Amino acid sequence: MRTSRLEAFSDGVLAIIITIMVLEIRVPEDPTLEALAGIVPQLLSYLLSFAYVGIYWNNHHHMFQVVDRVRGGVLLANLHLLFWLSLLPVATAWADENHFERTPVVVYGLVLLLSAVSYTVLQESICRAEGGERLREAVGRGDLKGRASLALYVTGIALAWVQPFVSVLVYAVVAVVWLVPDRRVERYLERWEQREREADGGAQAPAGGPGH
Amino acid sequence: MRTSRLEAFSDGVLAIIITIMVLEIRVPEDPTLEALAGIVPQLLSYLLSFAYVGIYWNNHHHMFQVVDRVRGGVLLANLHLLFWLSLLPVATAWADENHFERTPVVVYGLVLLLSAVSYTVLQESICRAEGGERLREAVGRGDLKGRASLALYVTGIALAWVQPFVSVLVYAVVAVVWLVPDRRVERYLERWEQREREADGGAQAPAGGPGH
Amino acid sequence: MRTSRLEAFSDGVLAIIITIMVLEIRVPEDPTLEALAGIVPQLLSYLLSFAYVGIYWNNHHHMFQVVDRVRGGVLLANLHLLFWLSLLPVATAWADENHFERTPVVVYGLVLLLSAVSYTVLQESICRAEGGERLREAVGRGDLKGRASLALYVTGIALAWVQPFVSVLVYAVVAVVWLVPDRRVERYLERWEQREREADGGAQAPAGGPGH
Amino acid sequence: MRTSRLEAFSDGVLAIIITIMVLEIRVPEDPTLEALAGIVPQLLSYLLSFAYVGIYWNNHHHMFQVVDRVRGGVLLANLHLLFWLSLLPVATAWADENHFERTPVVVYGLVLLLSAVSYTVLQESICRAEGGERLREAVGRGDLKGRASLALYVTGIALAWVQPFVSVLVYAVVAVVWLVPDRRVERYLERWEQREREADGGAQAPAGGPGH
Repeated sequence: MRTSRLEAFSDGVLAIIITIMVLEIRVPEDPTLEALAGIVPQLLSYLLSFAYVGIYWNNHHHMFQVVDRVRGGVLLANLHLLFWLSLLPVATAWADENHFERTPVVVYGLVLLLSAVSYTVLQESICRAEGGERLREAVGRGDLKGRASLALYVTGIALAWVQPFVSVLVYAVVAVVWLVPDRRVERYLERWEQREREADGGAQAPAGGPGH
Repeated sequence: MRTSRLEAFSDGVLAIIITIMVLEIRVPEDPTLEALAGIVPQLLSYLLSFAYVGIYWNNHHHMFQVVDRVRGGVLLANLHLLFWLSLLPVATAWADENHFERTPVVVYGLVLLLSAVSYTVLQESICRAEGGERLREAVGRGDLKGRASLALYVTGIALAWVQPFVSVLVYAVVAVVWLVPDRRVERYLERWEQREREADGGAQAPAGGPGH
Repeated sequence: MRTSRLEAFSDGVLAIIITIMVLEIRVPEDPTLEALAGIVPQLLSYLLSFAYVGIYWNNHHHMFQVVDRVRGGVLLANLHLLFWLSLLPVATAWADENHFERTPVVVYGLVLLLSAVSYTVLQESICRAEGGERLREAVGRGDLKGRASLALYVTGIALAWVQPFVSVLVYAVVAVVWLVPDRRVERYLERWEQREREADGGAQAPAGGPGH
Repeated sequence: MRTSRLEAFSDGVLAIIITIMVLEIRVPEDPTLEALAGIVPQLLSYLLSFAYVGIYWNNHHHMFQVVDRVRGGVLLANLHLLFWLSLLPVATAWADENHFERTPVVVYGLVLLLSAVSYTVLQESICRAEGGERLREAVGRGDLKGRASLALYVTGIALAWVQPFVSVLVYAVVAVVWLVPDRRVERYLERWEQREREADGGAQAPAGGPGH
């Protein structure tokens, strides 16, 4: 099964998740700077969640660049990822409306953790499938960044019992780490095209790389 | 008429339906586990409806893999399906806000039943059209799973007069049955590619299977 | 400029318009049939507006089947159409929350009228552009259905001073007329492919019709 | 990396931003013309913001017509643009609910300014990348219109201390200037195709221009 429609559906859901969070930002009542200052925590948590959804879209996009066809199981794993990401707006609203108290911050971290786990599951289900070696090769054996993120989420959640703001900081650090674009897949694609071109003897421009 | 834009529009509508349901989840007021526990029924009914929309997207996607072109009648049948599915968020909200009392649970079941009926109508309208034999062949003569679902919805609705929670359980069972990916179409596609490849004498890789 | 992205953007906006109207349906408070009966007018007006957006998507889709490339002016005309259609949810909500009193019913009719006018403007701007003769030929000289609709909207608006329910009935009649799929473009496409095939001498299957 | 999915995601986000603003329009309570008159400022500010998002979609569309492949940095710059545009609904609601008082009008202008700046950053990041010379050539050396807009936004923001309505007028003027479609890219594309055709000796129709 071609991945184009899976990508289109995921794009749609992620675009909606990233945008409806803006509906949670309460419009300040008074036309004053103080009223605006009152929603700064909301704006910051919106920025964090926006960054997270953007990162997932980014990585999703990279991942499916090296995949052409998938089976039903991958569709399920993809829906599973979208489910956890769709809870991000609620978790964000709960956290910022309660000034980042411990329980909402823990729940926010759990939603991030479960999204990351379901992303890993999706990645694995693609790697295991026919044609998945390309993704396996691209991600590399250790998937250091993915595993480090999981560890950081758990650390962040645990730190909420010390100081919830520290947890939020940890979540933000993970976001910043991922905002540095995932060069692994890009590098793999470059090597791939390189090899293709060499195989072609450099005579013609290759009609297409993977992900076409 | 090519199906690409019909698929894109349906993807859009389904992506929005699946995501706006999250707007119905009321953010808990207090930052406590008790407050979170209070929205667990909402989260579970969200999960059920999310699964249903996901299943419909999945099957819709499978169905249009074997269809290349459609006529105006199919567009109408598709809109008809989207209409019933679009009522799912309201039905979900009504059911969970009233702790799954009988009337909302019956209405929720009716929305599921009418969605399923309109899906069957869409499938039939494609099968009857020119080029629809492929889908007919893929779905098989009996369409056992489709017919069993209709029977289960009716049973679930009827059981609401005994105990509404049992109805919800029946609805959940149907969802689980469908989450097992529809292997019929996949198997058909495999056989199709197999035949193509044999017809080609295995000399070249086939340029495309159906649904390209 | 290729029309694919214009179509994708319009699909997105129309998919959102058609779906957010469901957010305007107030979930009944009590779990009773009486409470459900109370939102029947809302459901009916939702059905009408859903049908209208569906019709516009349908016709938009048909129209761009015969168009390959557009200029900046068409993009503007398209935005103009989307603007009026985006007011449909508000007009719908105003009309049904006030039990279809005269002023909201007139405004609802005006939104329909202005959407139809902007659709005609879009159609004209495409016909006038390079390559627009095909659409001109497909729509036909008189565009009887389009002009009749405009007349019916004006009639419906005027009848609101007699009895607003009659206006709503007139609007519904126009919707039903359009739900009969627009065979003009389909017939044109068939004739086009026919001619192509004949020109090819029937030797090979044609690589593509218009709108590919 | 192909730009198709970046375009699809941006289309989705822009389609949602442009449409959810309609959710901010409060449905008038009474079925009277007076009640309707009460939301005219909301409708006008909706029109202005709708026009702005439409313009950004338009320009985004034009820009990516001349770009085929991008790197990770461009994806980030694109997310950055979408972030600022996603704040437009909140800024719009704040401005019109407070009858265009100074602070909200300044903030609205800042959101417009930061959107324009992030658009410029995106444009630059594409121009600097491999294959970006085409966009550079298309935009021209001075990018007069882009720079004039930035100056006008700053002027508009400053004028809020004199009279906020003048600021809104300035913002509206910028919108009108941009609604005149960006002929630069179109002209470039024409020249490009022209050259291609000449290089081909006019023997065959060219298979594709840039942005295919």
